[in-house]
Amino acid sequence: MEHRIKNIFNSIKTKPDIIIIKNSGESIVDNNFFYFTGLEKGLFEGCSAILFPDGKMDLLVSELESETASKINANIKIYKNKDDYNTLLKASTNSAKKIGLNFNGITYRNVLNFYELFPNTDFIDISNNISKIRTIKDNYEIDLIKKAASISDHVKEKIPNLIHEGMHEYELAAEINYLIQKKGADKEAFDTISSFGKNTAEPHYSHGETNLKYGDFILCDFGARYKRYNSDITRIFILGKPNEKQKAMHEKVLEAQKLAFDYIKQGVKGCDVHKEVESFINKSEFKGLFIHSTGHSLGLEVHDGGVSLGPESNIMLEENMVLTVEPGIYIPGFGGVRIEDNILVKKDGVELLSKSSRELIDVS
Amino acid sequence: MEHRIKNIFNSIKTKPDIIIIKNSGESIVDNNFFYFTGLEKGLFEGCSAILFPDGKMDLLVSELESETASKINANIKIYKNKDDYNTLLKASTNSAKKIGLNFNGITYRNVLNFYELFPNTDFIDISNNISKIRTIKDNYEIDLIKKAASISDHVKEKIPNLIHEGMHEYELAAEINYLIQKKGADKEAFDTISSFGKNTAEPHYSHGETNLKYGDFILCDFGARYKRYNSDITRIFILGKPNEKQKAMHEKVLEAQKLAFDYIKQGVKGCDVHKEVESFINKSEFKGLFIHSTGHSLGLEVHDGGVSLGPESNIMLEENMVLTVEPGIYIPGFGGVRIEDNILVKKDGVELLSKSSRELIDVS
Repeated sequence: MEHRIKNIFNSIKTKPDIIIIKNSGESIVDNNFFYFTGLEKGLFEGCSAILFPDGKMDLLVSELESETASKINANIKIYKNKDDYNTLLKASTNSAKKIGLNFNGITYRNVLNFYELFPNTDFIDISNNISKIRTIKDNYEIDLIKKAASISDHVKEKIPNLIHEGMHEYELAAEINYLIQKKGADKEAFDTISSFGKNTAEPHYSHGETNLKYGDFILCDFGARYKRYNSDITRIFILGKPNEKQKAMHEKVLEAQKLAFDYIKQGVKGCDVHKEVESFINKSEFKGLFIHSTGHSLGLEVHDGGVSLGPESNIMLEENMVLTVEPGIYIPGFGGVRIEDNILVKKDGVELLSKSSRELIDVS
Repeated sequence: MEHRIKNIFNSIKTKPDIIIIKNSGESIVDNNFFYFTGLEKGLFEGCSAILFPDGKMDLLVSELESETASKINANIKIYKNKDDYNTLLKASTNSAKKIGLNFNGITYRNVLNFYELFPNTDFIDISNNISKIRTIKDNYEIDLIKKAASISDHVKEKIPNLIHEGMHEYELAAEINYLIQKKGADKEAFDTISSFGKNTAEPHYSHGETNLKYGDFILCDFGARYKRYNSDITRIFILGKPNEKQKAMHEKVLEAQKLAFDYIKQGVKGCDVHKEVESFINKSEFKGLFIHSTGHSLGLEVHDGGVSLGPESNIMLEENMVLTVEPGIYIPGFGGVRIEDNILVKKDGVELLSKSSRELIDVS
């Protein structure tokens, strides 16, 4: 991952001597640790990667992770306890006067510890730099996202066979996750959303004990994580024939998505894509019912930082960004429709990474 | 959750006027947000809970989460954008002169934003206080962990039927995760470890494409997450008859675990439990091959902070702590054995929360 390390140094004006990517416990994980090390497995709680301008890296790991860590090309130093860790860290940082840190991915506690350990050092926030270089995917990353997208496409085709009247939302989620893993994914990309009926009106609902009834919308929002890279798609099914309102919602969202596909290319702004989609929906009977962004960057994280298709996203789209495109219409107490796909931004348009069909399927 | 909020204020000497629990993006999640709100569903990225000494709470949520948030008893304020969020946050904090923050669960970036927003305010680190009150589980929490443990027990009994020669590690992981969810868990508690043969010697290995061969150890380390609370067990299987070395490893680990069960009760120190177990293993032919802590606290997180059964854990065990007990022996290039269960600390001993049998099962 030398090119990534060189990239990040090259992208910083006031160059730090070294950068420390400090990884924390399980619920505070900085994916940049995995971005720069290329480690595909392991947890690496509390471990640190120290990056040097020449593309080299020191990797401070606990004994627990030493065998997993040995699979990558790095100068690996194994610590047994906190004192050990501090000693090794000091040795690695050597005479560094300025240390770059990802202020967005490190806890305040860890920063205070660094201040104590390195009282004469300047700490520089490199979060924007990291965020920016990570928005542009390299071929290795694009291939992994394509693989992840092909797994979610495969699963989507199987969903109609899994659904039956009366089933619980969590049962469908279990079936979807099972298929994702059986196809060789690390795991699901995020908590699979499997919502029925009026629950589909809650964009961030996951799944509960609700039973499927005739006439219900079924919203499945899921993705695969393959070697840490994610896909993220949403499809709508229905048990029985859709009524006029349901049909109209689905058609409007599908048209809105098509509009976004046609609009996106290198050089347009994320917020302008969103405005196009939002104003298209607001011109219809569904005014005001599209209540989230049109899309987000996708990669090592499901919501990969730096760029989005949201109302406040002024960043220009560039070739090799990977984004979701996911317009929706949500009617509280009735139901919601979202259709979501993954695209690669090209010079003159988009390449669809998720390819499964988008029609409203009656699964009865 | 008023009692939790009162508890945390009561536990702090220099009392802040209010506490802010700031939740971040998906990979930076502060589970204390869920601890204090009691929210079972939703992501709540970037949302904040403002806790008041009288047990009341303001909840700042985006539109996206407003319906999910409405299920709890809180003063809910919905924001549309960052400016909105800042305005609402200022209104909630009102005349607070001291604000408590969890320095372990908040990014440096968020702290810097708070400093900017509240230039005349003192910020107090309440991470140790939170950590301490969370180590003692209330009955509601114990019931959820028991439910999670009963799900992993159920899955453990099914594992022998799932295994066949030649299968991939990731296939077994997929089967385990499927059963966990089919039994009504939210999801698996963490990335299920399903390792074969010499991969079992890597404690934090997850699963890969290795095929199962005759004579291989099969290590399954998995748990269920039920309403956000976790179980975490490890069992060893073998395809075929174990050789003498394999048998000896398994027996030694089982004895070590039994020793820990007998030793643990209110009033003993975590490090002393670990020393007992470690020195027992070190007296055998497997000296130096137990390379991690004997156990960790379990709850909303799989590695719930505050207390552990590790070499540096000076904290006295107390009634109603929930811990894992998981001795292991790891021989690089050969294989590893770990046996892990979940216990509740009682006045005069332990209550086993996971109850499935621990023998070395030949699944051929």
